[in-house]
Amino acid sequence: MKIESVDFFYLSMPVVRDVGDGSQDALLVRVQAGGHVGWGECEAAPLVSLASWNCPMSHSACKPVSASVLGQTLEGPEDIRRINALVRAHSFDLLQADHTLSGIDIALWDLLARRRSEPVYRLLGYERAFPKIAYASQLFGDDPQETLNKARLVGRAGFRAAKFGWGPYGRGTVAVDAEHVRAAREGLGRDALLLVDAGTVWGEDAAQAALRLPALLAAGAVWLEEPFVSGALQAYADLSRVSGAVKLAGGEGCHNYQQAKAMIDYAGLGFIQIDAGRIGGITTARDTAEYAAARGVLYVNHTFTTPLALSASLQPYAGLAQHEICEFPFEPSSLAREFSTTQFQPDAAGCIHVPEQPGLGVQPDLVALKKYQVDVEIKVGGRVLFRSPAL
Amino acid sequence: MKIESVDFFYLSMPVVRDVGDGSQDALLVRVQAGGHVGWGECEAAPLVSLASWNCPMSHSACKPVSASVLGQTLEGPEDIRRINALVRAHSFDLLQADHTLSGIDIALWDLLARRRSEPVYRLLGYERAFPKIAYASQLFGDDPQETLNKARLVGRAGFRAAKFGWGPYGRGTVAVDAEHVRAAREGLGRDALLLVDAGTVWGEDAAQAALRLPALLAAGAVWLEEPFVSGALQAYADLSRVSGAVKLAGGEGCHNYQQAKAMIDYAGLGFIQIDAGRIGGITTARDTAEYAAARGVLYVNHTFTTPLALSASLQPYAGLAQHEICEFPFEPSSLAREFSTTQFQPDAAGCIHVPEQPGLGVQPDLVALKKYQVDVEIKVGGRVLFRSPAL
Repeated sequence: MKIESVDFFYLSMPVVRDVGDGSQDALLVRVQAGGHVGWGECEAAPLVSLASWNCPMSHSACKPVSASVLGQTLEGPEDIRRINALVRAHSFDLLQADHTLSGIDIALWDLLARRRSEPVYRLLGYERAFPKIAYASQLFGDDPQETLNKARLVGRAGFRAAKFGWGPYGRGTVAVDAEHVRAAREGLGRDALLLVDAGTVWGEDAAQAALRLPALLAAGAVWLEEPFVSGALQAYADLSRVSGAVKLAGGEGCHNYQQAKAMIDYAGLGFIQIDAGRIGGITTARDTAEYAAARGVLYVNHTFTTPLALSASLQPYAGLAQHEICEFPFEPSSLAREFSTTQFQPDAAGCIHVPEQPGLGVQPDLVALKKYQVDVEIKVGGRVLFRSPAL
Repeated sequence: MKIESVDFFYLSMPVVRDVGDGSQDALLVRVQAGGHVGWGECEAAPLVSLASWNCPMSHSACKPVSASVLGQTLEGPEDIRRINALVRAHSFDLLQADHTLSGIDIALWDLLARRRSEPVYRLLGYERAFPKIAYASQLFGDDPQETLNKARLVGRAGFRAAKFGWGPYGRGTVAVDAEHVRAAREGLGRDALLLVDAGTVWGEDAAQAALRLPALLAAGAVWLEEPFVSGALQAYADLSRVSGAVKLAGGEGCHNYQQAKAMIDYAGLGFIQIDAGRIGGITTARDTAEYAAARGVLYVNHTFTTPLALSASLQPYAGLAQHEICEFPFEPSSLAREFSTTQFQPDAAGCIHVPEQPGLGVQPDLVALKKYQVDVEIKVGGRVLFRSPAL
């Protein structure tokens, strides 16, 4: 079969707030081929990613993503890999193309796996999917008391792991940061896994990050995530040499395999966090998981949007039993909650199960999503290049 | 003064051909503050970069670039650095933002330096600008005979250095590649510097690249550029250990300081090539030049568009006497040729001089450019987010 159409649906909350909540909008992708349909999602900045789809060509290495996708043959995983290579070769001077490719790649896997009536992870070569310990991913409270309250809620909701991030952390004093971490531990109870996300707040300053280690060690934090901007290999490596039992986590900013490999090879990470909606899709995420496993670095999904994105983020390491933690957005927007009738919930052991339904196992609820669709029209030289299709 | 306006002008040749010629379009940026004007340029994919300017916010780390620029105070270089940091912090999940920032940063330096009636390089802290040996940058011929003819033309045009790249190189046999390299050397004559650009053709395959080394060594090539995709640190490092007198060059794909630093630290490069229109502008390019110099890696500009982009690309290393090679587009489009009345030409010694006029020393010819402007209109949710301003 041939790829006949690729459609982009820009979904958004009516009001997007200035907080670190990535579930406030989504760029949904629908691919159609041979009477089959697949769904995918691109991480962040919907307008910019869809502009990459059919912008005019700048030169032979800066083509719109569509030039490497429409009309391509799609019979098996090797075709998805071939399409990935085409996009990378023909659009490598188009920076945003990696996000656009990500959503398309996810939809291609969904489509192929639906056609074969099996879950995507099996198409990726895994015999079975192991349950993952879901960590409730949320923002720090504005003050330690709020963090304590949030942690208690998470504990009561049956999670065995929780991550607190962003908000005030790293922006005030070392003492206040320590109070937040203590509050998180107190609220969660002694046994839950505690993860802390600094949201790149210290840039490349390893000394600032090191000042926070004693509180993290005392609270038994499993990891400190993104103390530095993505790709700050030296700063990560320096901190990793003194962080002891607190492992470093990072990598969500990687938008290709080479960047993820560099983080694994040089940053001293304990955990590599990959967003399938950004790194180029399930294909590149799967390659990264394999490389991480070979190098003794634990793979973790990064995801902060819809159930579709969550399912896509789980597939690349579904079959890796040792890589057992997974991110789970705990405070999703109504857009994310209404996205599909399929909703992931942790089981009694606090674990998430990768869907066993065909494809990604998540069917977007097109009726519910209508009210979130944002109409876009892009005209270049008087010609309409993009107009939002009807959901 | 405050930044009052930032305008984007999408310029393009009427027909963009499917060749590796980056001068076929341009995204010109005009910044106005306190009655002063500055001009900059973003590398590649104009529509996508301007969509990054005022796309709707996705969340607190994925804001449009405009949110960190408009209304900001601009008095000195420290303000440009502050604005850079704001954009990186508020738009770090918006991949294309680095290209958009690049053009704005360039325009900010131009504006500040014009206001102070001195060239940008002096504002960057350099006492003087050293002439650079211009290498005529062009594509390989379709066959070795055409490469020979092209090399002869370059030699006659007074260049002491020339780069051949892309086209068939690396896409056929090792023997044909060797013929191209021999033809280039023959056409240039014995004394000219010969540079070869593989345009990332071998992905991450160091063995394929190594097969081309004997011909490059025999022809006395100074460098082999981009044998691999940007960021393939291991492949670069592996090849660098066997490349002997042929140094590796790369880095044009870097879109932030961390990526450039990683290439300098881990890729075994002899030359780091930075595109000021992509890495975040003159600010980040200058930081990279400083780091490269400290690490014994030679800095070279990457540029393939207009005289404005060329001038911007020269400023970051204008004062570094040892870093003496510069890229010079030899086959620019009519858009690039008509871009300004200022045109760079190598002197009798084959050197390019950094302009001594205020700012970047390049005034876009707005009358000539009118015919190249492409009208863009972007509507989101029924509201016009962008409409091309009149030139």
